[in-house]
Amino acid sequence: MLTVKEYVQSNKDRFLEELFILLRFPSISADSKYKEDIVKTANFVADKLKEAGADEVEVCPTAGNPIVYGEKIVDPSLPTVLVYGHYDVQPADPLELWDTPPFEPTIRDGKIYARGAADDKGQFYMHIKAFEYMMKNNALACNIKFMIEGEEEVGSANLGTFVKENKARLKNDVIVISDTSMISLEQPSLETGLRGLSYVEVEVTGPNRDLHSGVYGGAVANPATILAKLIASLHDENNHIAIPGFYDDVVELSQEEREALNKAPFDIDEYKADLGVEELWGEKGYTPIEHTGIRPTLEVNGIWGGYIGEGAKTVLPAKAYAKISMRLVPNQNSERITHLFKKHFEEIAPAYVKVVVTPHHGGEPVVTPTDSMAYQAAERALEEAFHKKPIPTRGGGSIPIVALFEKELNVKTVLLGFGLDSDNLHSPNEKYGIENYLKGIETIPLFFKYYAELNK
Amino acid sequence: MLTVKEYVQSNKDRFLEELFILLRFPSISADSKYKEDIVKTANFVADKLKEAGADEVEVCPTAGNPIVYGEKIVDPSLPTVLVYGHYDVQPADPLELWDTPPFEPTIRDGKIYARGAADDKGQFYMHIKAFEYMMKNNALACNIKFMIEGEEEVGSANLGTFVKENKARLKNDVIVISDTSMISLEQPSLETGLRGLSYVEVEVTGPNRDLHSGVYGGAVANPATILAKLIASLHDENNHIAIPGFYDDVVELSQEEREALNKAPFDIDEYKADLGVEELWGEKGYTPIEHTGIRPTLEVNGIWGGYIGEGAKTVLPAKAYAKISMRLVPNQNSERITHLFKKHFEEIAPAYVKVVVTPHHGGEPVVTPTDSMAYQAAERALEEAFHKKPIPTRGGGSIPIVALFEKELNVKTVLLGFGLDSDNLHSPNEKYGIENYLKGIETIPLFFKYYAELNK
Repeated sequence: MLTVKEYVQSNKDRFLEELFILLRFPSISADSKYKEDIVKTANFVADKLKEAGADEVEVCPTAGNPIVYGEKIVDPSLPTVLVYGHYDVQPADPLELWDTPPFEPTIRDGKIYARGAADDKGQFYMHIKAFEYMMKNNALACNIKFMIEGEEEVGSANLGTFVKENKARLKNDVIVISDTSMISLEQPSLETGLRGLSYVEVEVTGPNRDLHSGVYGGAVANPATILAKLIASLHDENNHIAIPGFYDDVVELSQEEREALNKAPFDIDEYKADLGVEELWGEKGYTPIEHTGIRPTLEVNGIWGGYIGEGAKTVLPAKAYAKISMRLVPNQNSERITHLFKKHFEEIAPAYVKVVVTPHHGGEPVVTPTDSMAYQAAERALEEAFHKKPIPTRGGGSIPIVALFEKELNVKTVLLGFGLDSDNLHSPNEKYGIENYLKGIETIPLFFKYYAELNK
Repeated sequence: MLTVKEYVQSNKDRFLEELFILLRFPSISADSKYKEDIVKTANFVADKLKEAGADEVEVCPTAGNPIVYGEKIVDPSLPTVLVYGHYDVQPADPLELWDTPPFEPTIRDGKIYARGAADDKGQFYMHIKAFEYMMKNNALACNIKFMIEGEEEVGSANLGTFVKENKARLKNDVIVISDTSMISLEQPSLETGLRGLSYVEVEVTGPNRDLHSGVYGGAVANPATILAKLIASLHDENNHIAIPGFYDDVVELSQEEREALNKAPFDIDEYKADLGVEELWGEKGYTPIEHTGIRPTLEVNGIWGGYIGEGAKTVLPAKAYAKISMRLVPNQNSERITHLFKKHFEEIAPAYVKVVVTPHHGGEPVVTPTDSMAYQAAERALEEAFHKKPIPTRGGGSIPIVALFEKELNVKTVLLGFGLDSDNLHSPNEKYGIENYLKGIETIPLFFKYYAELNK
């Protein structure tokens, strides 16, 4: 019987090779031309679950991308942990900003560079390898279920139905997700909240066709200019979001809670230097940790209209577009926020343009408990692996499905993430530290061990 | 000896066929991948000039696209007319908005649909066919020179050098350009002014890489949002351009001049219906005819940044861009305006972003005289061909090279345009009326006849 540390040491090359195969699939869920790669990725995940020892492995069809399921029921009287992850990835563009191709994983300075390295292939695959260790070394102290989906990056549109239709199969005592980050390898942390999301696309139409900007310019509203004016008005001079009712349901933290939050290590100069900015931005009256953790935001994720090719074209465009997403905090509700945005945007649009607001997807904010057995088990596992007690933080990202699990399966989630904020998630040159990957594989069996012990 | 009317009638099918060949070349100057098509187009134009009877025909190389030259000197004591036109065209995108392919000319409802149909292939080719008529029927009463260039749509960067280096060869008494529009076939008109142009590209950089909008959103300035705010601030609440000094050199027309200008037929309801807009836009205190003729403008010709593909991507982009052009009126100067824009834009950019303003190209506004022999000849020619006296108008477009001709060759220009404002220049479904094309060929020899007579 090997310890997990020994097992990881003697298998690490293979663990990396397998992850590299997984990373080579361009499983981009936002673009339908990758449908075939999505299916190949799901099949690969299913094969690896089987090889590791899972039963009932199935690539479950949905109306969208398939969900990979697998389980190992050791003893029905033991607690059951459900591992959730996603094998789909964000689009890789702008491609020209990648130093090495996004789907050719490459190691530099101890990091694996590839789209999906940290989000979430590198992180969910740790669980399959940790499971392999526990199976081979008779160390699986809980029942385990895997649910690895393929639409997380596009709003998990079909996971809700799957969960509702498979409540018995998915029944569990706690959900573990490794799709978040920790402060550093020197200072482990556990995210105890995630922001929700409301994502919309707006279309502003001026004239019924592109016009010559000389012949018509000056007399006809330019939808790109009007879109700029509309977007500009969405934040006031204090960077508050200027949508009526937007903050109505925001829970303000107490002074004590805010102070505790701001005790996390944060060096503003390092932060600015890493990002290459001279000054930070943000809602007046809050710190950067609060801006990215406990405050809602509104971001333009994409904007386009008119001629965007090489050289100059003197066109007054017929249309301009933007993709806009809002991160939500407790107790904001994504449907209500989407509704408020749409209503406001339509109201402020002047009569010389038409606007259409199309909701993309949403998700609810969550706060996870820090007094549960699962949280304590995670805390102990991290402390043993990293030799330092993890501190709780509030994550700025969103895993919209966490709120759904809570509602449909009536269980809480532990966010056992091993990434770093600097991993370039959703950006060119996404990376994941080899040490984060291997330490993650080491930590997970400890979590199972302590969770079983605490449940006794 | 045939009259021009008879000649056009008996040759009109061939005139259309030849134009169609010319229109099939995708001679897009803004995109370097069409270099070969550009050269083919220039060679075709040269061949047709030779066939029509021109001497000294040459495809003259420049640092950019070639200039086609040809001439016919009947008698050095006669006046010389220089015909200027351009064989390059605007990009055709967005392609999906064309009802028929842009480089497959198609006739519908008496109009030729193709990129360049009116701007400027259909219009300069009328001159080659009118020249052919005059040569075959011994009707050429002036000397004629042709200069057809291939970079008008990208700022005629190399024409200036060519003109300066070929002053003797290009020597002439008047320049005729058919690259503008008339009010209608029922109401001919002559443009007596053109707006100048200052075209810039702006780049706004926030963080040094695309960021996850959840992890960083709220604490880091989003360059797309900031670009929107900067663009929004460029027009005030009265749609005046808010760049300090922008209006300093604008010549305000007298009340009488403005009244004369506004006497041109203009039906605001038809105009709105044609464009599909509920309300017009524009600088407070001026009419649409003034907005598009005698007032300067600032238009966003293109804007882009972040994720603009299918679906949703939660990215906080590193960069956002816009192409912005300003139309100028007498006595604004394009270099000064470009400088004012750049200075202002850099000054208003907040410290959390960096901005770079890159000038594309410019051109000076012009006003052409209405008391010259050439204008009077054009007036008579139009009146004879259309049975109605043309009225003078002010064009909103720009042919930057007109000011250069005036400066370098010390001659004035007549803007003998046969297009219509509704021809969709620079837009999908560009078109040119067959009647406009044939009437143009009929009118041009009359201009030569009257110009020679007035010069006697």
